[in-house]
Amino acid sequence: MSLRIALDGMGGDAAPGIVVDGAALACEADPELRFLLFGDEGRLKPELDKHPSLRRAVELVHTPDAIGPEVKPSMALRQGRNSSMRLAIDAVRDGRVAAAVSAGNTGALMAIAKIVLRTLPGIDRPAICGVFPSRSRPVAMLDLGANVACDAGTLVQFAVMGTVFARALLRRETPVIGLLNVGTEDLKGDDVVRRAAAMLKQSPPPIRFGGFVEGTDIVDGAVDVVVTDGFTGNVALKIAEGVARLFRDSLKEAFTGTLRGKLGYLVARPALLRLRERFDPRRHNGAMFLGLNGVVVKSHGGTDALGFSNAIRVAADLVRQDTNARITEEMGAFRHALEPVQGAAAS
Amino acid sequence: MSLRIALDGMGGDAAPGIVVDGAALACEADPELRFLLFGDEGRLKPELDKHPSLRRAVELVHTPDAIGPEVKPSMALRQGRNSSMRLAIDAVRDGRVAAAVSAGNTGALMAIAKIVLRTLPGIDRPAICGVFPSRSRPVAMLDLGANVACDAGTLVQFAVMGTVFARALLRRETPVIGLLNVGTEDLKGDDVVRRAAAMLKQSPPPIRFGGFVEGTDIVDGAVDVVVTDGFTGNVALKIAEGVARLFRDSLKEAFTGTLRGKLGYLVARPALLRLRERFDPRRHNGAMFLGLNGVVVKSHGGTDALGFSNAIRVAADLVRQDTNARITEEMGAFRHALEPVQGAAAS
Repeated sequence: MSLRIALDGMGGDAAPGIVVDGAALACEADPELRFLLFGDEGRLKPELDKHPSLRRAVELVHTPDAIGPEVKPSMALRQGRNSSMRLAIDAVRDGRVAAAVSAGNTGALMAIAKIVLRTLPGIDRPAICGVFPSRSRPVAMLDLGANVACDAGTLVQFAVMGTVFARALLRRETPVIGLLNVGTEDLKGDDVVRRAAAMLKQSPPPIRFGGFVEGTDIVDGAVDVVVTDGFTGNVALKIAEGVARLFRDSLKEAFTGTLRGKLGYLVARPALLRLRERFDPRRHNGAMFLGLNGVVVKSHGGTDALGFSNAIRVAADLVRQDTNARITEEMGAFRHALEPVQGAAAS
Repeated sequence: MSLRIALDGMGGDAAPGIVVDGAALACEADPELRFLLFGDEGRLKPELDKHPSLRRAVELVHTPDAIGPEVKPSMALRQGRNSSMRLAIDAVRDGRVAAAVSAGNTGALMAIAKIVLRTLPGIDRPAICGVFPSRSRPVAMLDLGANVACDAGTLVQFAVMGTVFARALLRRETPVIGLLNVGTEDLKGDDVVRRAAAMLKQSPPPIRFGGFVEGTDIVDGAVDVVVTDGFTGNVALKIAEGVARLFRDSLKEAFTGTLRGKLGYLVARPALLRLRERFDPRRHNGAMFLGLNGVVVKSHGGTDALGFSNAIRVAADLVRQDTNARITEEMGAFRHALEPVQGAAAS
């Protein structure tokens, strides 16, 4: 059965090229995909012409407007009504597509998605949820930056959404939730994380609380889902990205700086390529805006076609797993059990 | 001129071996060092006997008590009065040594140091300040975990202390301060970081404010000193540690898993060893408890002798650069200028 996804053709550092090339890659792997592609026809048409295979899969919707990377969310809301980003989200609301994918301005995308799609029943605030490689298996983490401050109840809602997300995208039966903190002992951290931990400990299924985790535990894959506020999550994400990139670049330097380095690389190449593939950030590209009444996936702005195709795959997967219906259902059942727990933790 | 440093002989995962071996390494590089070594004589004596060169440099002070890694700070304060850690800090207070170094329990060490040494004039809260490798040159960062929550005024005090620290330890003439945030635009982040930024912008020398920085900027070495609250700083530190370790381990696996990998390693070895040395965490071991009326350096608990010797070097360097007197002086001059700024930002 075909699955229709809206694409923001103008979002991302290397748009529109990576969007169209990414759509072609995604289609190759998953021929059921169909796209509504929003953006400047004059720039998108030549890109589409490179991929005859996309002719039947893509419907191009022309709009000259686009939201730049530096535009503030409030401005994007007011002046971006005909932007490629806004029209892609509108298409989700109108049921013309099952999901939207954009590599554009994160703040603008979140603001537009919140206003246009609204939150799911029982969810106060949406969160950005991504997936990262670890020593063992991939780990989901939220919030990556939608909410700079969160109260304990919000963190518990994130835990429910993260559980459903990990089941859908990572295929974990009963995902273990970790709460990011500065130590694993009960007394560590501020009031918010301690109260959230008290609530999660007493929470009914689907919550399976694994306690506090530290940065090193995330990297070791100690839990399936890491819950934190958007400030800490965003800093953690960008530190991890930065360190990983620094290592990749330094390794490359070591292998290209000397003749022995170059020779050594050639000999060890198969093992090094496997290593590179394992930690390739493009393979983990695509963060979902969880808690909205619609599937919206944010691709990294600096990604290439392969990374963008992965974000499309994430969107398709989340739609097919009926993630939002499951969140609504779990949250409904959970809320009844949650309220007395919240009351107890507050008192 | 000789410089006396107190060592907590019983702190650290591999104590007392790494403490004594680390002291020997430090002495080799810096023959002016003298040590007061606190701990269990029965365990320290055999370690000392391995290093005849230390005979004249070390004075052993026996105590059977030690503070374990899991002991809570409050318990360490009440029951640890004769512990090796406490006696090392007492020696700083009494002027018998110029500094103390411990690889023990961080929370206990901070609690004891605060009670015994008190804060410097003008400083409300001490902070943990460490140094990290970056793409270009090392970067100092504070707070790494002493204060889970900070107000804007505290972050500004950290900026003054960080400036003096970077001058002393990193030899930067006029260090640029970055404030860790989730984006670099003025509107990003919560009230605390925005207010701190407003205050830092109007701050007189020694503050040279470079604006907000993100995780990737730290890794790229965009500023000399990164200021943040202890919650975010601790998470950032442990994520960076975790990712770096994961990369090192995975690279090792790639080079040992296959015959081609092993051969490639042998050929590229000189370049790979240089790379390893550059990012060796032991070379950056030793975080200072800044803002206390005495120099206390915390070594990573899991370090080895080389790492511990580096923590000793950091302590010696900070003493010789008269870091605490300089903080008091800068803070005194700065406070007069700070108060109206604080008032303006609060209104």
